[in-house]
Amino acid sequence: MNAPATTTDTALATTMRGLGMRARTAARALARAPTAQKDAALAAAAAAIRAGGEAIIAANARDMQAARERGLSKALLDRLLLDAPRIEAMARSIDEVIALPDPAGQVMAEWTRPNGLVIQRVRVPLGVSGIIYESRPNVTADAGALGLKSGNAVILRGGSESFHSSTAIHRCLQQGLAAAGLPVEAIQMVPTTDREAVGYLLGHMQEFVDVVVPRGGRGLIERVMQDARVPVIGHLEGICHTYVHRSADVDMARQVTLNAKMRRTGICGATETLLIDRDCLATHYAPIADALVAAGCALRGDAEICARDLRAQPATEADWHTEYLDAIISVRVVSGVEEAIDHITRYGSGHTEAIVANDPAAVARFFRDLDSAILLHNASTQFADGGEFGMGAEIGIATGRIHARGPVGAEQLTSFKYLVRGTGQIRP
Amino acid sequence: MNAPATTTDTALATTMRGLGMRARTAARALARAPTAQKDAALAAAAAAIRAGGEAIIAANARDMQAARERGLSKALLDRLLLDAPRIEAMARSIDEVIALPDPAGQVMAEWTRPNGLVIQRVRVPLGVSGIIYESRPNVTADAGALGLKSGNAVILRGGSESFHSSTAIHRCLQQGLAAAGLPVEAIQMVPTTDREAVGYLLGHMQEFVDVVVPRGGRGLIERVMQDARVPVIGHLEGICHTYVHRSADVDMARQVTLNAKMRRTGICGATETLLIDRDCLATHYAPIADALVAAGCALRGDAEICARDLRAQPATEADWHTEYLDAIISVRVVSGVEEAIDHITRYGSGHTEAIVANDPAAVARFFRDLDSAILLHNASTQFADGGEFGMGAEIGIATGRIHARGPVGAEQLTSFKYLVRGTGQIRP
Repeated sequence: MNAPATTTDTALATTMRGLGMRARTAARALARAPTAQKDAALAAAAAAIRAGGEAIIAANARDMQAARERGLSKALLDRLLLDAPRIEAMARSIDEVIALPDPAGQVMAEWTRPNGLVIQRVRVPLGVSGIIYESRPNVTADAGALGLKSGNAVILRGGSESFHSSTAIHRCLQQGLAAAGLPVEAIQMVPTTDREAVGYLLGHMQEFVDVVVPRGGRGLIERVMQDARVPVIGHLEGICHTYVHRSADVDMARQVTLNAKMRRTGICGATETLLIDRDCLATHYAPIADALVAAGCALRGDAEICARDLRAQPATEADWHTEYLDAIISVRVVSGVEEAIDHITRYGSGHTEAIVANDPAAVARFFRDLDSAILLHNASTQFADGGEFGMGAEIGIATGRIHARGPVGAEQLTSFKYLVRGTGQIRP
Repeated sequence: MNAPATTTDTALATTMRGLGMRARTAARALARAPTAQKDAALAAAAAAIRAGGEAIIAANARDMQAARERGLSKALLDRLLLDAPRIEAMARSIDEVIALPDPAGQVMAEWTRPNGLVIQRVRVPLGVSGIIYESRPNVTADAGALGLKSGNAVILRGGSESFHSSTAIHRCLQQGLAAAGLPVEAIQMVPTTDREAVGYLLGHMQEFVDVVVPRGGRGLIERVMQDARVPVIGHLEGICHTYVHRSADVDMARQVTLNAKMRRTGICGATETLLIDRDCLATHYAPIADALVAAGCALRGDAEICARDLRAQPATEADWHTEYLDAIISVRVVSGVEEAIDHITRYGSGHTEAIVANDPAAVARFFRDLDSAILLHNASTQFADGGEFGMGAEIGIATGRIHARGPVGAEQLTSFKYLVRGTGQIRP
């Protein structure tokens, strides 16, 4: 395929197309690399991160300084910060990726046709993945490692506020590749904070990029969905629900809801709305609400909740649509599992929902009729996480329905091909 | 999500959004429908097609008449034509879809975490699929049946030249749905031949359409890829190769190549280029070329072929890029499997390639280093077909790398969700 003639043949285009061409070449080498070689590169990268901790922290200090000067919020500063424990966690996350099975080359299915043809479906790397993310610099390590493990070349585009941190981490990943004799272009970073670069990656790199995985807030995701001419593994926000059915154990409902909301409020798997059956309001509501308030959570309730609990502020229509990512929970009373399903279908983002119940029929209904990426029974929504699913690190939680859904790990960065073995068969 | 404010709030937009909303509602009903009910609808649809054969043929006669007046080519007229055997074949294709397992609800994987959480990955319908196709009216039946089997609502947009035929077939499919008590909106047809409708479907229906599957020629596919703001299961043309390795059995090479090229020249799995090892040119070329010429095939060769075979015209650079879909084959001499792989990587479309060889090392290399959707050993490229793979009907052969690849059948119109069963687990 020839390059399309564009009017954007600027310096940026040259830079981006250069990244793309090198990624394509590296992807071919990576697709043929044995597992041991890829794992050796990962091990060397983890070692380089551990050895280079001081340099990474120094680079991070530059980012932190600039972020403070720009007046970034405390929450954002915390996301940006790297210290020794976080650097060790980053390296350990690579160790975990090494321990995963290599998805590339796995035989996913095999069958024999009546004419004797033996058909295998075999996993192959997707090719070149573009990962667009925001402030957390550790995504640089996670995305690079998962891409490498699955045999993908990756083009990383992190947030401008973490540019120096990501660059330092990226250097360690490339050291790992070089040490194992793999092309360093297997993990590339967009070398500029120019915002146009994202537009170019999304709109003009169809030849070079097989998929884009965006990880970040609503603004980023919407931009990606709007501008992408390349396939996207979709991520939306996590408007997650915990539903307490009348058959729920009170203590379990309290513990699960408290954990789902308050363990960490800033992650996409945190519960934002509690739905509770009218039939168990008298017995179950107070223990749950007291525990939440005691942990520092604000309540926004519907009319029935506000009538019962003076601590609750009235929830508006907007509350049911809101991913607070904060110590706030909206609470609505429902008449049963059907109304809970209706509420979630209407307001949810298809991410993660939990039911606390002992009635198998209610659970079956919840599991059948809801269509979120993750549905849990008697467990906290905060388990919505690639690591907790046993996938090692993750690039994010996909809420789209195409290709990948739920945690995006190494396996989700693969495609497949069919290998058909015959003995001279021709088609009649 | 609210409808985006657009300036296209015309009659077309109203029509298209109406289709979308009804499809979304029908998809919810279909996702909950038991297999037996979906199969009953399919059986009633097949019966309606058999019973309504005369009406379908009458509708087709209108399309044929208009097509002749517009001077369509003989090949296109043949694609468009419906007669009694073709109508029976269409109904039989639905019978085959009934016999397939229902992909929705299948447990794809299940594992238990150290904390006792039991995680299942369960197949679910994709939701609403838009199928855009060209002249063959039987795609209406195939796409409708595969969508229904997998629990998807479909919005069908066929070629304008087959509009009356498709409308008649569509009526039979809706009769089937109604007979089984399923919403007729599960299979809808865009009720206009207005070309703008395709643009609206691709660009403004993100709320209502989960995936678009285009099936047709290069012009259609390129338009879809360019305009789509919804996910696309990509299809490119089939520039398929048959490679004869020096270790190939001569007779097998002759039979497989002849079948791959000439069984049907107009399908995407037809071989367009023959690559042959220099080392076996003296023994293998003449039998293959003689058989092709005897069957009416024209030869376009590289310099070595033209020097050896006066029947061959010189191939130009464009020939290696061309999907003839006709009784023409381009032939190139290569030095071995590596050069064959290089040629296919450069000129192929990632569809289907075959190697004829008895040397296992050459086959292994071909299978490892090529990355087309389908790779065959000692078998004809014409096996690139959902039916031949055991998938029943097919909507097409995907050459993209995202979500589906190779034949697109009922299973490829599914996504999945995770069901997680706990006993009160909270995340530490």
